[in-house]
Amino acid sequence: MTDKLADELTVDFEPLGRRARVAQGTTLLEAARQAGVGLNAVCGGTGVCGTCRVRVAAGQVTPPTEAEHDALADGLRLACQARVLSDVRVDVPLASITAPQRAQIEGLERAVELDPAIRGFDVAPPPPSLTDLRADTTRLCEALHQQYPHLSPSSRDGRLRFDHGALCQLPVLLREHGWHVRLVIRDGEVIAVAPAGTAPLGLAVDIGTTKVAAYLMDLESGETLAAAGTMNPQIAYGEDVMTRISYAMDGEAQARELQRVLVGGLDDLAGELCAQVGRDSAAIVEVVLVGNTCMHHLVLGLPVEQLGLAPYVPALAYPYDIKARELGCSLPPLKGEARGGVHLAPGANVHLLPNIAGFVGADHVAMLLATRMHEADEITVSLDIGTNTEISLAVDGRLLSCSCASGPAFEGAHIHDGMRAAPGAVERVRLVDELVEYQTIDGAPPVGICGSGILDGVAELRKIGVLRENGAMQPGSHPRVRGTGRETEFLLVPAGEREAPRDVVINRKDINEVQLAKGAIRAGIEVLLGEAGLKAEQVERVVVAGAFGTYLDVGSALAVGMFPPLPQERFVQVGNAAGMGAKLVLVSRHCRRVAEEIARRVEYVELTTHSRFVEAYTAALMLP
Amino acid sequence: MTDKLADELTVDFEPLGRRARVAQGTTLLEAARQAGVGLNAVCGGTGVCGTCRVRVAAGQVTPPTEAEHDALADGLRLACQARVLSDVRVDVPLASITAPQRAQIEGLERAVELDPAIRGFDVAPPPPSLTDLRADTTRLCEALHQQYPHLSPSSRDGRLRFDHGALCQLPVLLREHGWHVRLVIRDGEVIAVAPAGTAPLGLAVDIGTTKVAAYLMDLESGETLAAAGTMNPQIAYGEDVMTRISYAMDGEAQARELQRVLVGGLDDLAGELCAQVGRDSAAIVEVVLVGNTCMHHLVLGLPVEQLGLAPYVPALAYPYDIKARELGCSLPPLKGEARGGVHLAPGANVHLLPNIAGFVGADHVAMLLATRMHEADEITVSLDIGTNTEISLAVDGRLLSCSCASGPAFEGAHIHDGMRAAPGAVERVRLVDELVEYQTIDGAPPVGICGSGILDGVAELRKIGVLRENGAMQPGSHPRVRGTGRETEFLLVPAGEREAPRDVVINRKDINEVQLAKGAIRAGIEVLLGEAGLKAEQVERVVVAGAFGTYLDVGSALAVGMFPPLPQERFVQVGNAAGMGAKLVLVSRHCRRVAEEIARRVEYVELTTHSRFVEAYTAALMLP
Repeated sequence: MTDKLADELTVDFEPLGRRARVAQGTTLLEAARQAGVGLNAVCGGTGVCGTCRVRVAAGQVTPPTEAEHDALADGLRLACQARVLSDVRVDVPLASITAPQRAQIEGLERAVELDPAIRGFDVAPPPPSLTDLRADTTRLCEALHQQYPHLSPSSRDGRLRFDHGALCQLPVLLREHGWHVRLVIRDGEVIAVAPAGTAPLGLAVDIGTTKVAAYLMDLESGETLAAAGTMNPQIAYGEDVMTRISYAMDGEAQARELQRVLVGGLDDLAGELCAQVGRDSAAIVEVVLVGNTCMHHLVLGLPVEQLGLAPYVPALAYPYDIKARELGCSLPPLKGEARGGVHLAPGANVHLLPNIAGFVGADHVAMLLATRMHEADEITVSLDIGTNTEISLAVDGRLLSCSCASGPAFEGAHIHDGMRAAPGAVERVRLVDELVEYQTIDGAPPVGICGSGILDGVAELRKIGVLRENGAMQPGSHPRVRGTGRETEFLLVPAGEREAPRDVVINRKDINEVQLAKGAIRAGIEVLLGEAGLKAEQVERVVVAGAFGTYLDVGSALAVGMFPPLPQERFVQVGNAAGMGAKLVLVSRHCRRVAEEIARRVEYVELTTHSRFVEAYTAALMLP
Repeated sequence: MTDKLADELTVDFEPLGRRARVAQGTTLLEAARQAGVGLNAVCGGTGVCGTCRVRVAAGQVTPPTEAEHDALADGLRLACQARVLSDVRVDVPLASITAPQRAQIEGLERAVELDPAIRGFDVAPPPPSLTDLRADTTRLCEALHQQYPHLSPSSRDGRLRFDHGALCQLPVLLREHGWHVRLVIRDGEVIAVAPAGTAPLGLAVDIGTTKVAAYLMDLESGETLAAAGTMNPQIAYGEDVMTRISYAMDGEAQARELQRVLVGGLDDLAGELCAQVGRDSAAIVEVVLVGNTCMHHLVLGLPVEQLGLAPYVPALAYPYDIKARELGCSLPPLKGEARGGVHLAPGANVHLLPNIAGFVGADHVAMLLATRMHEADEITVSLDIGTNTEISLAVDGRLLSCSCASGPAFEGAHIHDGMRAAPGAVERVRLVDELVEYQTIDGAPPVGICGSGILDGVAELRKIGVLRENGAMQPGSHPRVRGTGRETEFLLVPAGEREAPRDVVINRKDINEVQLAKGAIRAGIEVLLGEAGLKAEQVERVVVAGAFGTYLDVGSALAVGMFPPLPQERFVQVGNAAGMGAKLVLVSRHCRRVAEEIARRVEYVELTTHSRFVEAYTAALMLP
């Protein structure tokens, strides 16, 4: 030990499988932070709260402090007090891990140069008189160019185009505001007229098949003012993309309904966010939407039939701009008419990032942008795990992408006691011999099991030998295993325990669903690696994004073979990277160009017809 | 009656055979609007003009108001005053119907180089396959540039923009037509997708306050396929611009109604024209509208308040392009939904020529273009006579324009027995000593007198000495003169003659109306000449355009002093020059640029505040 360099001490966190390399004297709490282990530390690491309890399983740390009196009684230490003296292995009780947050609205932050698609100009033209009969628009344009002589003319003679909605409001607003207004100009077109000084707002939205996350931004400061998440209201018409395509194919009215409820949901989010910060939604002048190709088409009202039938081609892959009102977003109220609800600026624009393929959409482009996959200098795999999982591989300047149908198991669907990640869902499972530990969302009475819980469950059942390599559950292998044959199930929560209203079990079919899902993901990764002539161990970094990707336990995912066997420190969980990408393109035209470049560069690999896919998939179904 | 529901009263209009179902208390005028009966309502339904006379043949209406004194004398009621109390049958006299007039659809023809704003390209991309997964739009764009290598790219990477309506149809149409379609492209944007080979159509429309003339053109051959004229459906809301502005100012719903009925009328014309030549209205990809500034604003849904109040400035003077659907034009039907009626191409564009001032609109620009006033090498005066008369003067490369309120006398309004130029209207009058000759439109029994008739009448009465220079009618000067003082009148048609249902007279007030109208026109001409330092006799050419301008007798106009005393051969009557101008800009982008140049070049002269106007007007009131 003594001849090791000071910063080469290792701290392994189990059962998470995370490792930190730290200097002697570093606290276990700091080491946990470095390793990305979310230890509770309510008091900020001052030894007061006693929430960062861990068990030192091997190695030497500093002697207990007074603050650790209570913890010691349970054979534990406080991570904020214990400092490493040698290589250490630490067991982290479930109760010490910070419960993942529910809303997928936090993402990795990055500074970009503020360069939004719109710009506001305060203009004060002279009012008309009997000796100055210029039309309102002429008067405004001439005043604008006088006040801002360096403004490049948008057309010959320096004329501005006017959005029709903005134009219809213009004569009234000019007179109401005493000929002193702010023009919001986008691409040479006046899209909004507001009281002078009004800061224009933008809305970045990640439309997931299941959830929608929205961010309200000030386009003059670049600041994120508020964030909110909600369910995709289309969920009432089917939980996955194929069900919705099938619903839309029933007729034009059905397709319109899917568009209408989704746009209505966006309106609601815009209203909620503006209410949070006390702003008028009419100040929203630019919206960026990202979503998978099906969500992209449905929100635009494009036909989706061709997305549901081989060869699954999108109608539109290019980046797209459209007026919000053309999507049926709430129109601004006109004079003399009181309309309730949300109304964006009359000419508010909606920008959609490009799609890559029928099942690799604009949300994946946004994720690649936010995680800088296009400029990765390490061999990197990135995944956005959902009902469809998009996978990309960056190597030597190449970007390869594919999509695999991983199914809804990780969203709690098709699982016997499955449920969404809502209060009462078992989200963590730990099995030590006959001890069954679990944790529910918000500590609520257990009512079911969500994606990260079922993943943990399968990993742990395999670890303690309840499951065979092929997923079969061995009767008699554990006191909680009951039934026989295909009816075999594992009793995770007996009814009544912690006020559970009924038994929560994991059965043979649940295991099978997880095998199908993780097998598809793993096969996708393997095919991409094969396309690039790489071996799994060459992968230097794995970026896991999205809701489930944020909450899953990487150790469990490795244990079931969802990912290739790589050291845990090569994995990074980044939260809602697609939403972050949407925010980036909302405030930066440069990022839009980069996103377009990314979509163009991607080499799409179609799995369904790929020669190696079936073999890879079959192999990946096994549990390691 | 009493046990009927309030909204179940029926109003039958005979001999037209139209029926309305209305609530008790509805005016007969409103019922007529609902039934689509074009009752005259010059004053907008305020009881002032007395033109909406009808006979209540059966049923009960409210007792007569004071406004109905004159009508009652003839056994008639005013439709705007009488409200229904029971089921009612109403006889509508011929004179009360806004019968379609002779259509103002012929104009001077000119050859211009065909250079429309749109172009059609037949494209046949390969269908998608498992080895070719490009999106529909990508596939199309790449095929287009392959087939037409000299087509200049509309954006970087040669991408086309897509109109959203066209984009929504694209995936279905590509597959329906076996991957062989025609793209109609406008300014780098695909605005329509049609079966290969479909010739794109255009619609040129002159929206007059009273009448609308429309022309259907083949944009590949430049041929005018059909023409049609109709009444401006806004006529039911008031005959002149000010009445409509006032109606629109009542509220947003009213303003929208004015837009809606006008756009509906345009849809009807489009449908009628296409039916005439057996074409699908979905082939219409470009529409050009011209009209006075008020019609321009109303069809666009722009506020008109500021047009009704000094200093009468337009909201918009620049040329303008807008998607037809943004005006509420009929949208194309989508797959699976059967919609009747007219539908233009999804991305059909509407182009509006620039306005010059609040009362010199795009129609005058079109007229100046069609009559080549901008390149006149003679000193030329051009006039478009209507309720407002626009006058321009071309001299030494200058273009001066003004507008004068000439009133509705020449449209038959404010004249005792006045009527529109409809069958039965006296349109020509000749007095030789005691002989009274006249001619009615279509030779129908005389029921009233239209603009050209009243002009002739005043000219002839002055010629034979019945009228003094100041317009006073001299009692005893002719056997047909009857009454005394301000009650003096000239009996043009005795009741019974040629089956005339009643006397048709010209009274002192009628003379006065003609004096006011022609005085305003003459004063406008004189002020313009004064501005240019010219004398009247220097004018080498006078171009008279518009409906009344086509039918008026130039000799009579000279006789009453409407025009300066010039030899008749210097006058040319050109028909609907504004409509011709609209056709020119429909087929030629060069003409659009010229129109814009004209509007910019015009020196607008405001008469209402002009130092010389009152003097000129006073002098011009006299009869020579």
